[in-house]
Amino acid sequence: MKYRRSGRLVDMTHYLMGNPHRQVPLTYFSERYQSAKSSISEDLTIVKEMFEAKKIGTLETAAGATGGVIFIPAVDTDQAKETLSKLCERLEDPERVLPGGYLYMMDIIGDPALIHVLGRIFASHYRDVQVDAVMTMATKGIPLAYSVAGQLNVPVSIVRHEHRITEGSIVSINYVSGSKKRIQTMSLARRSLKPQSNVLIIDDFMKAGGTIRGMMDLVKEFQSNVAGIGVLTEAVHEEESLVEDYVSLTKLSQVDEKGKNIKVEIGNIF
Amino acid sequence: MKYRRSGRLVDMTHYLMGNPHRQVPLTYFSERYQSAKSSISEDLTIVKEMFEAKKIGTLETAAGATGGVIFIPAVDTDQAKETLSKLCERLEDPERVLPGGYLYMMDIIGDPALIHVLGRIFASHYRDVQVDAVMTMATKGIPLAYSVAGQLNVPVSIVRHEHRITEGSIVSINYVSGSKKRIQTMSLARRSLKPQSNVLIIDDFMKAGGTIRGMMDLVKEFQSNVAGIGVLTEAVHEEESLVEDYVSLTKLSQVDEKGKNIKVEIGNIF
Repeated sequence: MKYRRSGRLVDMTHYLMGNPHRQVPLTYFSERYQSAKSSISEDLTIVKEMFEAKKIGTLETAAGATGGVIFIPAVDTDQAKETLSKLCERLEDPERVLPGGYLYMMDIIGDPALIHVLGRIFASHYRDVQVDAVMTMATKGIPLAYSVAGQLNVPVSIVRHEHRITEGSIVSINYVSGSKKRIQTMSLARRSLKPQSNVLIIDDFMKAGGTIRGMMDLVKEFQSNVAGIGVLTEAVHEEESLVEDYVSLTKLSQVDEKGKNIKVEIGNIF
Repeated sequence: MKYRRSGRLVDMTHYLMGNPHRQVPLTYFSERYQSAKSSISEDLTIVKEMFEAKKIGTLETAAGATGGVIFIPAVDTDQAKETLSKLCERLEDPERVLPGGYLYMMDIIGDPALIHVLGRIFASHYRDVQVDAVMTMATKGIPLAYSVAGQLNVPVSIVRHEHRITEGSIVSINYVSGSKKRIQTMSLARRSLKPQSNVLIIDDFMKAGGTIRGMMDLVKEFQSNVAGIGVLTEAVHEEESLVEDYVSLTKLSQVDEKGKNIKVEIGNIF
């Protein structure tokens, strides 16, 4: 079946969006639509122009014999800042304050559409960095980690506190949680991360950074390299920071449990 | 700025894909592109025809004063079966057999692109069912649950074995795990699920169904209703089934720990 340009543009956009950071040869499209490569090239120019005009991302031309294009998702910085500003406002709701000065955040983490947008901000931030895998800590880091990984087209490695019989051999390390000064264990299935990977660590919350520091040590145990660290929310703390290079979307600068006064601002990503 | 039809089609497709199961008024597009509603209607007809031709989904016309369209993601059944067949083959790899007859599945669960496709199969299956929330059990159900929820445009409620100080007040129930016959506890943050919700339960693995049964009881504790149950893999078992109405993507019919002989077939979804 042959398709007109208008139809091709719809299907191409759908296909590229579903396959970010993946090289698609021109022949894939020319066979899919029974169209000449020259027509496909023109189609892709239109897609590229619109993706760039609407700040959806870019279409990079892949070098090599097969040629082709790679869709690199990006974000409109102004729109991303607006999203984060609204998120900060939502986080400042006094109803969120829990005993111990913790914040209830499960509604944020439980919102797939929002998590998709937040993941896109990280995917855009790290779009030019070589990332082979995303690592996160169960449970609450998982949704954001999957969103980032999906948009970077890499697998996810889930680190856990408990051992599970269904994971086969595991690598465990001990670490000291920064705020509680308690020795804890974290582990990752041996098969869950290839050696010599460039690992992007994504988590939902960071205070002094003990958990992140532990994941950094775990990355080393897999002869791998930390490509970046991104957190949804960083919180002010009195302890010494255990992590220096990181990117945060939001920053919790104050939680007053008594007065239920919360201050949240945009993190260091912008 | 005005946009030509070709550009509008690219951006519309991107927008609709990012906003499944959500009503988008025609005025949204006519303002976004500074175009007449009649042109937007024609654009949407092209999008709809292509979505249906390529089995991406449908565009439903929304009734009411504002009008508009709703993108309902679907799957091509043949392609979905092919995806599941390949998954079954991957699962039959003898290297997966772990002590106790468990299967290593973290590579499947850790693949966001695959999980997205599997989530789409469930989202398509339940597209005409009223679903207000997806519920899952930490940790391994989470990725699939988010994929389904994102494509149905509903929030996720994560049930956990442990209590967490960062979740506020929780509702806990005891349940008997079907295979181990052990009493366990599961809990969900009170704020994490609105009463009178229609809940789609999604999990990675089901044997006799004790965990799913527990989640069904938990749904009741929230004065809510089970809208459906979907599992990535169901396994044969000798115990009595605790769950009757469910949909599975794959079925593990045999794990022979000694011979490392695994048999996996497509589940009851097709």
